Amino acid sequence: MAPAFLKTTEEYKALIDSVDTFLLDCDGVLYHGPVVVDGVKAVLSMLRKAGKKIIFVTNNATKSRRRLKETFNGLGFDATIEECFGSAYASAVYLSEVLKFPKDKKVYVFGEEGLEEELDECGIAHCGGSDSEDRHFQPPIDWTAFKPDPSVGAVLCGFDSWINYKKLAKAQTYLKNPECKLILTNTDPTYPTNGDLFPGSGSLSIPIVNASKRQPLVIGKPNKIMMDAILAHHHIDPSRALMVGDNLLTDIEFGLKSKIRTLLVMGGVTKYEQVYGDQPSPAVPDLVINSFGDLASLAVE
Amino acid sequence: MAPAFLKTTEEYKALIDSVDTFLLDCDGVLYHGPVVVDGVKAVLSMLRKAGKKIIFVTNNATKSRRRLKETFNGLGFDATIEECFGSAYASAVYLSEVLKFPKDKKVYVFGEEGLEEELDECGIAHCGGSDSEDRHFQPPIDWTAFKPDPSVGAVLCGFDSWINYKKLAKAQTYLKNPECKLILTNTDPTYPTNGDLFPGSGSLSIPIVNASKRQPLVIGKPNKIMMDAILAHHHIDPSRALMVGDNLLTDIEFGLKSKIRTLLVMGGVTKYEQVYGDQPSPAVPDLVINSFGDLASLAVE
Repeated sequence: MAPAFLKTTEEYKALIDSVDTFLLDCDGVLYHGPVVVDGVKAVLSMLRKAGKKIIFVTNNATKSRRRLKETFNGLGFDATIEECFGSAYASAVYLSEVLKFPKDKKVYVFGEEGLEEELDECGIAHCGGSDSEDRHFQPPIDWTAFKPDPSVGAVLCGFDSWINYKKLAKAQTYLKNPECKLILTNTDPTYPTNGDLFPGSGSLSIPIVNASKRQPLVIGKPNKIMMDAILAHHHIDPSRALMVGDNLLTDIEFGLKSKIRTLLVMGGVTKYEQVYGDQPSPAVPDLVINSFGDLASLAVE
Repeated sequence: MAPAFLKTTEEYKALIDSVDTFLLDCDGVLYHGPVVVDGVKAVLSMLRKAGKKIIFVTNNATKSRRRLKETFNGLGFDATIEECFGSAYASAVYLSEVLKFPKDKKVYVFGEEGLEEELDECGIAHCGGSDSEDRHFQPPIDWTAFKPDPSVGAVLCGFDSWINYKKLAKAQTYLKNPECKLILTNTDPTYPTNGDLFPGSGSLSIPIVNASKRQPLVIGKPNKIMMDAILAHHHIDPSRALMVGDNLLTDIEFGLKSKIRTLLVMGGVTKYEQVYGDQPSPAVPDLVINSFGDLASLAVE
């Protein structure tokens, strides 16, 4: 059955009354690149005043929660660190709390400072990442230089704009040890910026998956691991939570996999026909709204 | 039915009498890294004396035929350029002879000098590749710097040890034009060297495939395009040709797809059980031999 398209202030009010926690996708819901969606700031303020919990949920793996907070506050969202939940932090929480990653082992990071910062926060030892030794590489390749390090117990891959052959070859040498885990912050194939799409985390780490022939564990949306980390960390009642997003395959699927209600926001990556057309996507949201900012009509009353 | 395992000089002689052209995979058949397989030089010499045609067939995309010849002759194989057929050359031949690639268009090369050299040989204009502008890149990324160039009519991906974010992002911008083709020299996930496996061409170009969501055209073994290029270039009678290789999924599949007889060489990447075990690989060779060098017993007589 096609989902209800919310349009009236009565419908908006009924929705908000039924929700305690708003899990908000960011790009495409709250802003498009540097431009904040009309009404969003008023909605965030109204929800907080009404005692609702807000969590900004992003697959962006280059930013720590601290950096996410700075970004959001640069846009005028008055966010706290506790409200921010990126795939970098979710990965560190997963390693620390679920895997109980051993203190005498290290994580090899294919990623940037934000990912390292969250590992530090969770007390996980790491190597690679922003290490100048790995970042600066010029062929020819010294094939004898890549020797597996037995102290590396996991390879963690996020977005790494310093991708080079040395990083890929080192990751592969670690993964020759079947005990060494392969974890991806997310598999987003593209990264939306400047109104355009560029290679995303999932496309940068896929050489490591392909060459090692390993089945990776994926943390970020739409995977349940990310939701489990959020629910455990925030002690949320899932029946009173709502996942809000513009992407059927990541955001809406994320809610569906974890049995959390979903609100699809138009005006992002999803086309009307994908929901209401003759051949709709199998990822069906519970509710649809034109823009998350439309809820601001309640704040004005 | 399990393939015949050739062991006697009579069997070797019958095989050679039935073949005019030997298509030889290189690493794993003729040598292992820097070490030439026993007897191989004598076999090559015997075959040439008997008037047989020899073609060295390799997916290696970093070397032009000229460089392949140098490598083979460094191992003592007395090869000629005409005997060498790499996926770099096959790609250039495909662009020039099959695609009739327009003279006013350019190929964006994700690859190294050998690939550029073969494009030059075939009169195909190109950019990217070994251009210092693309090879030297340091974050942060200037997202506004990537603008599609309408004169680029194809992205050709081989092994590029200079892989970086700029190269990947540029490839993606060209592929936004649906007229721009995506061609891979090969999809080998790993590159065998120093008795170890490192990320191969297929793993280095997969970010471009993944981010662009395009279906690439693949040239190298086991694809028929490579065989078509060889057959057309050399005017070979396929019924009197034999593909010799150590890899079921590339070499043997390559022969099967083009209906060329195949000889599997043990001692490379294939295990005995994959051919003669309870659950053999679906890629079944016509014949099996312990080592290609074993044919040297005929030369001694």
